Amino acid sequence: MKNLSDFVHSLGLKFGIYLDFGTKTCEGYPGSMDFLEIDAQTMADWDVDYIKMDGCYSDASVQALGYHAFITISYCVPRFVPLFSNILSLFKGMKNLSDFVHSLGLKFGIYLDFGTKTCEGYPGSMNFLEIDAQTMADWDVDYIKMDGCYSDASVQALGYHAFSRFLNGTGRPIVFSCSYPAYEPWKEPAFPFNWTMLQEDCNLWRMLDDVQDSWASVLGIIGAYEKYHITLALNAGPGHWNDPDMLLLGNYGLSSDQQRVQMGMWVMFAAPLLISTDLGAISDESKQLLQSDLLLQINQDPLGLQALFHYTIGGIKIWTRRLSNNGVAIAFLNPSDSSGGPVRIVVALKQLEVFETDPPFCLTDAFSGKIFAIVDLDTPFEVRINPSGIILLIVQSLN
Amino acid sequence: MKNLSDFVHSLGLKFGIYLDFGTKTCEGYPGSMDFLEIDAQTMADWDVDYIKMDGCYSDASVQALGYHAFITISYCVPRFVPLFSNILSLFKGMKNLSDFVHSLGLKFGIYLDFGTKTCEGYPGSMNFLEIDAQTMADWDVDYIKMDGCYSDASVQALGYHAFSRFLNGTGRPIVFSCSYPAYEPWKEPAFPFNWTMLQEDCNLWRMLDDVQDSWASVLGIIGAYEKYHITLALNAGPGHWNDPDMLLLGNYGLSSDQQRVQMGMWVMFAAPLLISTDLGAISDESKQLLQSDLLLQINQDPLGLQALFHYTIGGIKIWTRRLSNNGVAIAFLNPSDSSGGPVRIVVALKQLEVFETDPPFCLTDAFSGKIFAIVDLDTPFEVRINPSGIILLIVQSLN
Repeated sequence: MKNLSDFVHSLGLKFGIYLDFGTKTCEGYPGSMDFLEIDAQTMADWDVDYIKMDGCYSDASVQALGYHAFITISYCVPRFVPLFSNILSLFKGMKNLSDFVHSLGLKFGIYLDFGTKTCEGYPGSMNFLEIDAQTMADWDVDYIKMDGCYSDASVQALGYHAFSRFLNGTGRPIVFSCSYPAYEPWKEPAFPFNWTMLQEDCNLWRMLDDVQDSWASVLGIIGAYEKYHITLALNAGPGHWNDPDMLLLGNYGLSSDQQRVQMGMWVMFAAPLLISTDLGAISDESKQLLQSDLLLQINQDPLGLQALFHYTIGGIKIWTRRLSNNGVAIAFLNPSDSSGGPVRIVVALKQLEVFETDPPFCLTDAFSGKIFAIVDLDTPFEVRINPSGIILLIVQSLN
Repeated sequence: MKNLSDFVHSLGLKFGIYLDFGTKTCEGYPGSMDFLEIDAQTMADWDVDYIKMDGCYSDASVQALGYHAFITISYCVPRFVPLFSNILSLFKGMKNLSDFVHSLGLKFGIYLDFGTKTCEGYPGSMNFLEIDAQTMADWDVDYIKMDGCYSDASVQALGYHAFSRFLNGTGRPIVFSCSYPAYEPWKEPAFPFNWTMLQEDCNLWRMLDDVQDSWASVLGIIGAYEKYHITLALNAGPGHWNDPDMLLLGNYGLSSDQQRVQMGMWVMFAAPLLISTDLGAISDESKQLLQSDLLLQINQDPLGLQALFHYTIGGIKIWTRRLSNNGVAIAFLNPSDSSGGPVRIVVALKQLEVFETDPPFCLTDAFSGKIFAIVDLDTPFEVRINPSGIILLIVQSLN
C-alpha cells in the first residue's frame, strides 16, 4: 500500500482510503473494530491523506465514542501530531481541534507526563519541557494535567517547577495540575516536602492514589483528608488546590447516598470538581447533584478555605468549612455500612466551634435547599444521617 | 401510680393511661419519644389496662413506624406476653397479631434465639425449647429464625435438632431458619460438620457473617460462595437452602449496578430472598428488580440447584446454574471497581460447560427480558459487564 500511496502522490494526487469502524466493512471485508490503534498508525505509515470511516457492523450506540477514540488515538501524543495531522480530515491538527472546542464555549485541556513516557507508554515531556510548554500555548491549551510516570521522584519537584516557569514564559494563562506530590512521601513527618514551591508552581495537585469507582475508595480518600487535614488545609487556597481526584457521579460504583457523600465532601474540601462520566447517559439524580447551586456555591466560596475535621460523635464524622460573609458549612458524614438504618445525633453549634457571628442562625440543608432549623449557639438540634450518607448544613447568622 | 392503679382496680374498674408518642404530649407534658421501651415496661409495671397514645410533637412521617416499634417492644419476647398482653388494646396478644397478619394474606414470622438470651439481650429459648416450639404453633407462626447468641457452639447442632423435632411434633408446618452453621468452623476441612443433620433439621441456614449495607460486604459473601461453592451447592436443594443473608435493595449502600449484582447472584445461589427495607420509600428501580419475573423464575427453579463457579476470564467471574427443562443461567460478574468502564469478554457456550442440549440456543438477558443472542455451542458472543456489575443470561435450546 505504501508503494501505491507513493505512486498516487507522484501523480500530484492525494491518497484516500476507506475504513469501517465495525467488525466488517459494509461489503464484508475486515473492519477496524478492535484495531483502531493499529489502523490509525497504519494510515500514517502509508501517508494517507484522507480517511472515510464507515459504520457498518457496529452498534450505533458505541459509534460516537468509537470514532472519538480513533481521533483521540491519532492525536493523543503531541509529538505524534506531525505524523498524524495529515491523515484526518476532521480537525487537521490539534490547533483546529482546540479552536473547535473553544467554539463550543468549552475549555481545552490536555494530558502530559513529566517522565520519558506517559503511564500508558506514549512519549513523555522529559527533555522536551520547553518545547512542550510552547506547544501547549501555541495550541491555546487552557488546562494541563502533567502526570509523573517514568520519572525519578527526586527530580520531579524541580522538573515541574521548570515546566511551570516555561508555561508562565509563554504568556498564556494555563491551569497547571501537578501529579508529583502523589509520588512523594509527604505524609512522613520527616520528609522535607516543599509545599511552598508546590503552591507557587501548581494550581492544583494530586497527592493521593487514583480514585476507584467504589465507596471503599471514596472513604479511603476522605480518611486521608481527615488524617492530614491541617497540612492539606493550610496549603489550599485560591490558585492552589488539593485535588482528591475526579468525581464518580454517573458511573457504576456509588449508591445515591454515596454519590451525595462524594459530592458533599469534595465541595467541603474546596476540591476541583472534575466530572468523568458519560454525560449522555447520566441519571437525573447524579446530574442534579453536579449542578446544585448551593453545593457549587460552597465549593467555589471566594475565601477558598478547605474544611477542617472536628471530631466523631456517635460514629458521625463532623467537618466544618468557613465561608465568606461569616457563613459556615457543616458536614455530618456517616462512614458506616451498618444495616441498622440512619444514625441520629444531637448537637449544638457551640460544640462545632461556630462562635463569632450573632445568633440566631439559620441552618440550610445544602442538598435540598430547605431551611433545616433556626437555632442559637447552644440550641441542640437533631441530625439523622443515612448509612454511607451525609447531611450538609449551611450556617448563616440572621442578623 | 401503682397505688392509684390498685385503687382503681379495687373499685372493679379498668385503669387507662394517656401517653404521647412525641417529645411532648399535646398539653406540653413529657412524651414517650426516646422512652418507648421504658414506657412500655412502666405500663406493665403499673398494671395498666388501656393505653391511648396521642401523636403531638412528632413528625407524622415516623409515627406509623414509631407506634409499630412500641407494639413490637411490648410483644417482642414471647414470655413477656403474659405481662403485656393486657395493656395493648390493638391486638391483645400474639395470636391476635398473627391472625391480623394472616388476614392480610401474609405469613407470620418470628425471631428466637437458641441461647439463654437473644443477641440483643432479651430472653432466649434455652431450657424452654419444647414450650417455645408449642407456643410458636399455638400462635400459628409460619417462619422461625432461631439465632445462636448466648449458647455454646458445641451444643448448638444437637439443640437445634431437638427444637426441630419439637416443631415437627406440633404438627404445624413451620419454616425453620437455623443460625448455628455461622457459629461453627465449617470452613475448616478437618472440622466434622454434620451437613446431613443440618439438611434434615433446617429449611435454611446462615453460615456466613451478617451482611452489611455495602458493596464490600456483598463481595465478601459472593467470595465465600466462590471459595466453598462445591460444599455449599451440594447441601442446597428443595427444603434445605443456604442463606447468604438478606437483600439490601432499597437501602443506602449499593449502586444500581451493585443492587443488580446482589439480586442476580442471590438468584443464582438459589437463596431465600429476604427483603429488609422500607417498602414505602423504595425506589422504582429497586422494586422492579425485586419483582422481576425472570429473576424470580431462576431463583425459584424447581430443580433447586445452586450455581457453580467456573472460572475468571479477563477479571470476570463466571457462574452457571442448571435449570429445569435443560435451561442454564449464566452470570458474568465484574467484581472490579476500576474506573475504566465496562469490561468486554468474548466466550462461547462450550467453554461454559453447557453441553447436553441441542443447538441453536437462545440467550435471554434475565434483567431486561430481551433476547441477547442466538448461538451454537461454539459461537463466540460478546458480553460487556459494568464495573461492580453483572450480566445474567438464560440459555435455552430452540429445539
